[in-house]
Amino acid sequence: MGNVAGLYDKAKTFNNEQLRAIIRSGEYKGQTAGLSKNMLQTNLIILEKKYALDFMIFCQRNPKACPLVGVSDVGVPFLKTLGDSIDVRTDVPSYNIYKNGKLDSTVHEIKNLWNETLIAFAIGCSFTFEHSLIRHGFTIEHINENKVVPMYKTNIKNIKCGPFGNSMVVSMRIFKKNQVNNVMNICKSFHWAHGKPIHYGSPDEIGILNISKPDWGDAPRSLLKDEVNVFWACGVTPQNAILDSSVPFCISHTPGYMLITDIEEDAEIPILQ
Amino acid sequence: MGNVAGLYDKAKTFNNEQLRAIIRSGEYKGQTAGLSKNMLQTNLIILEKKYALDFMIFCQRNPKACPLVGVSDVGVPFLKTLGDSIDVRTDVPSYNIYKNGKLDSTVHEIKNLWNETLIAFAIGCSFTFEHSLIRHGFTIEHINENKVVPMYKTNIKNIKCGPFGNSMVVSMRIFKKNQVNNVMNICKSFHWAHGKPIHYGSPDEIGILNISKPDWGDAPRSLLKDEVNVFWACGVTPQNAILDSSVPFCISHTPGYMLITDIEEDAEIPILQ
Repeated sequence: MGNVAGLYDKAKTFNNEQLRAIIRSGEYKGQTAGLSKNMLQTNLIILEKKYALDFMIFCQRNPKACPLVGVSDVGVPFLKTLGDSIDVRTDVPSYNIYKNGKLDSTVHEIKNLWNETLIAFAIGCSFTFEHSLIRHGFTIEHINENKVVPMYKTNIKNIKCGPFGNSMVVSMRIFKKNQVNNVMNICKSFHWAHGKPIHYGSPDEIGILNISKPDWGDAPRSLLKDEVNVFWACGVTPQNAILDSSVPFCISHTPGYMLITDIEEDAEIPILQ
Repeated sequence: MGNVAGLYDKAKTFNNEQLRAIIRSGEYKGQTAGLSKNMLQTNLIILEKKYALDFMIFCQRNPKACPLVGVSDVGVPFLKTLGDSIDVRTDVPSYNIYKNGKLDSTVHEIKNLWNETLIAFAIGCSFTFEHSLIRHGFTIEHINENKVVPMYKTNIKNIKCGPFGNSMVVSMRIFKKNQVNNVMNICKSFHWAHGKPIHYGSPDEIGILNISKPDWGDAPRSLLKDEVNVFWACGVTPQNAILDSSVPFCISHTPGYMLITDIEEDAEIPILQ
């Protein structure tokens, strides 16, 4: 999906504002894992106003998967509390368009789709704590390999609100078994970015029957003997809720292709000061 | 306000369910600081549905003062994600009724005021981290003296949404100057309960001109030489926003008289598992 390796390596050297500029211009259309180190990245959901209250309550009731870090005004495509110049119509490398509970198309900007009834929601993303794991000496393989982290539907039911329900989506990373406690401790403070893993070990315990076939992202390699699959609640969960709903129209980011903000990843609150 | 000292001391021995029972019955009408140790206490705001979206966005944009920990369904007076049996019509010792931006009355239950257009919001409360401070050897004077913590309007502007704006309200506790860093470290993990203090030292730096005259709660004593005023963002902030708004009708808790939940105060998320 336009994610040329050389351009990805170049993008790794850019800061948050430079990255949004090359994404906005259409020059960079790739995934964003490993980019803009130290800055909060977010999932994006855009809905008609009439679904906004139910969606916000859905997020409040499912905070591991859906930590709300920013909300636009109705009809206004900016997220002022997350950055000075964030335009949700252009600043994400790839968008999913959902119609009547089905993925309709994937596009690189949504200027022609934005209208005054829409409201944008930003939800924390696990790419945020990956940087902290790297600083602590861990390897994040999908970053090294320019792949999209594997994501899976689970059998963990969300708490419903209005048309939004369905089950939790998780992202998966492989670690050595004796590293799991350390990973837990590093991630637990990232409460705007899914915090501690929700599960490790057997995928089928959370309803994942084929670990080699993720529902989103790239397939992982097989485990070595001393390794384990570690699962985090994932901000793609709202897209799974949309797929199961009667909501006629929704725009989201494409999983793995996130919005990059001006919020430091270890900020106490996700609000521009 | 009905807060007989003997009854307060007896209430201190009760657990969360027992406390809600004696509050619901009308037997206990006092403040709740120091009660139900280890369980999250919350502020309460009840609004008509048409203000709910703006209010939720206001809370999202002001997370230090307004960490949303629970939301009812519209017309349903229960907060199921915070406890099995929480009824917002009866389970708070004292309610403030606001009409057209003014405090109209204070009552002990709101069964006759609840209707199908209303929605209830629970917001984290600093009483939650007080228990942790006590466990770390600190003295919380207002608990020892059965007083309501002093609360003040500040000049720190809230980020607006719709009719909700005005300025942050803070609660104040006195500590020794050399304890402040330790207090900061203990409180920072309570992200559902205002987290780290927002200020310590000179009250007038945040617009508090007379520390001996709080806007809510009981007046504090004077500082000793080695002491300092420490200020936390406070969940009474939404009531201050109501006072400055055109919202015709709102019910809240009376500051200091909180809702007691079934959520452990150090839970990773404020959702009943």
